[in-house]
Amino acid sequence: MSAFSAHDHAHMARALQLAERGAFTTHPNPMVGCVVADGARVLGEGWHQRAGEPHAEVHALRAAGERARGATAYVTLEPCAHHGRTPPCADALVAAGVTRVVAACRDPFDQVAGQGFAKLAAAGIDVEFGLMEAAARRINRGFFSRIERGRPWVRVKLAMSLDGRTALENGESKWITSDAARADVMRWRARAGAIMTGIGTVLADDPRLTVRLPEGEEFVPPLRVVLDERGRLPAASALLTDGAAPTLAVHGDDIVPDYGDEVSAFAVRRLGPGLDLAAVLSQLGQRGVNELQVEAGATLSGALMAAGLVDELLVYIAPVLLGDRGRPLLAGLTPATMAERIGLKLLETRQVGPDLRLLLERA
Amino acid sequence: MSAFSAHDHAHMARALQLAERGAFTTHPNPMVGCVVADGARVLGEGWHQRAGEPHAEVHALRAAGERARGATAYVTLEPCAHHGRTPPCADALVAAGVTRVVAACRDPFDQVAGQGFAKLAAAGIDVEFGLMEAAARRINRGFFSRIERGRPWVRVKLAMSLDGRTALENGESKWITSDAARADVMRWRARAGAIMTGIGTVLADDPRLTVRLPEGEEFVPPLRVVLDERGRLPAASALLTDGAAPTLAVHGDDIVPDYGDEVSAFAVRRLGPGLDLAAVLSQLGQRGVNELQVEAGATLSGALMAAGLVDELLVYIAPVLLGDRGRPLLAGLTPATMAERIGLKLLETRQVGPDLRLLLERA
Repeated sequence: MSAFSAHDHAHMARALQLAERGAFTTHPNPMVGCVVADGARVLGEGWHQRAGEPHAEVHALRAAGERARGATAYVTLEPCAHHGRTPPCADALVAAGVTRVVAACRDPFDQVAGQGFAKLAAAGIDVEFGLMEAAARRINRGFFSRIERGRPWVRVKLAMSLDGRTALENGESKWITSDAARADVMRWRARAGAIMTGIGTVLADDPRLTVRLPEGEEFVPPLRVVLDERGRLPAASALLTDGAAPTLAVHGDDIVPDYGDEVSAFAVRRLGPGLDLAAVLSQLGQRGVNELQVEAGATLSGALMAAGLVDELLVYIAPVLLGDRGRPLLAGLTPATMAERIGLKLLETRQVGPDLRLLLERA
Repeated sequence: MSAFSAHDHAHMARALQLAERGAFTTHPNPMVGCVVADGARVLGEGWHQRAGEPHAEVHALRAAGERARGATAYVTLEPCAHHGRTPPCADALVAAGVTRVVAACRDPFDQVAGQGFAKLAAAGIDVEFGLMEAAARRINRGFFSRIERGRPWVRVKLAMSLDGRTALENGESKWITSDAARADVMRWRARAGAIMTGIGTVLADDPRLTVRLPEGEEFVPPLRVVLDERGRLPAASALLTDGAAPTLAVHGDDIVPDYGDEVSAFAVRRLGPGLDLAAVLSQLGQRGVNELQVEAGATLSGALMAAGLVDELLVYIAPVLLGDRGRPLLAGLTPATMAERIGLKLLETRQVGPDLRLLLERA
């Protein structure tokens, strides 16, 4: 593989920026960005905006027009080779006359997986890939997780006081964090394919789990998922009555709940005090969920963590103290020695209003 | 008062930087920096290095020499007017022939308090103050606290897991945070006049509470203070045997403990389950402690917080989870409603090795 130039890096970095513009709208498709360039000069840009609509390459080639002939196309993901809801992008690149395609990474999806590159190479196009691959995989970590691991990328969102409490002893928790933090959460919800909570949270708080963004910002409403082991989801709950987004209930396979028409449901086996969480995730993967955002209480969040099913923690810390009788952050984690503690890696720190936002991954 | 120029700001900012070079060595004296300048041109710089040694102004005037005549002196604190261990700086400024003195703030100390400015003005020097006053008070917040409030500035240092736990259920806590975080703590200890802990921590961990800095870095060893209500401090404890720094025990006024020769002690009245903490702080203020760093367990740290005696929290968060049975961060804080929660203000966030360091103040 050849070494990539500074121009190559600059154009791919731009393509990645473009790709992220689709963060709220492309799912379950991956975000993809494309830049058509000749040396330093950008001839066309595009990004994938919504499933079923044209891919990034098509937008960029249209913008470049005839100038695409002899140019290089930079794409953040291998161009597709199959007829899905749109014609193959590999064909479009060949037809436009580009002579070099630089991709950040291979598409792991069965119907592409190297065939896009093969088609381009067969047409005499110089194909290179692996440029800024880690960054490209990172923005589509949900899509890669679903295709490669058969389950969504799981992000657990937590909001706590500085002393690690999510509520007072009496359960009062509105609001620990600021308006700014709650608005920020909406942007993370918007990029998720689904938002999951537990029945305990539904019974206690009757949450909506919808995306509320400033006027004019588009998004695909995430699926709302409730883990409802014993079929207790109230017919009057906001999730079943507000019609704001689809709701999916998951119950134990030993019951047949009557949820009515407003909700789809599936069953998984019970495991310990709850449900088989790996099976839940597998089912959500099959339903096209790339990123799953968990906004639940200490029990479900703790159970996911204990089961090793959490990929990323999004933690908002409010600069307040709630005291040692406050509700704990995560339940059911009981390392017996320091060696058994759960290690994380701090990826990002940002102040959001008066609060602090941390993003962490499993170490 | 006149408006200050950009040159004035630049020189005072430099004087503040110089002042901070004395952070580990000047206590119980305040840190002071001085720049002698003519317009943009710096003629001399100085800072106070150690109590009993020359003040910042003397160093800066020496460096400027004859060029000081007609120049401006920028000082971070009002020049002294009294004969302490060194002659008055106000006299030195007059003798050197500076024609203008710009000070960041008044010295609150009784024997100075405006008299330095008066002496300068009487000699025909143009005196201005208030330039970057907040920053100047901030670096000497310990000194100002002791002089103005009669007690040290209280910094509580905490080290915890992401879920707000300081140890496992069994008490194991070595080490939650990283080498880098522990090295960083040493720099905060070095600027403290005293480090305080509780007898519980001494009995459990036998800490040294000394400053360990890289070779060549000077510091004045902080006093080590143990709150020992009932006189249980073991004669074999490191604090009493290592001779590394003076140790001071504080006990209830209803007992007469026998500590031997290695430790000074004083008594305060008992209050609730512990000691009268306000009285402890007042005594430490009288002993010249500007900044007090508390490195204690949940009981003492929580009691100080509950009593409203904490000025600043220095919190190291390790990216690990210890679980909901782990030891809590602060004991004895039990707000009954969200309105009663203790509000803080996040001043600074910094990554230290793999850990996160937060600096917070009471809101």
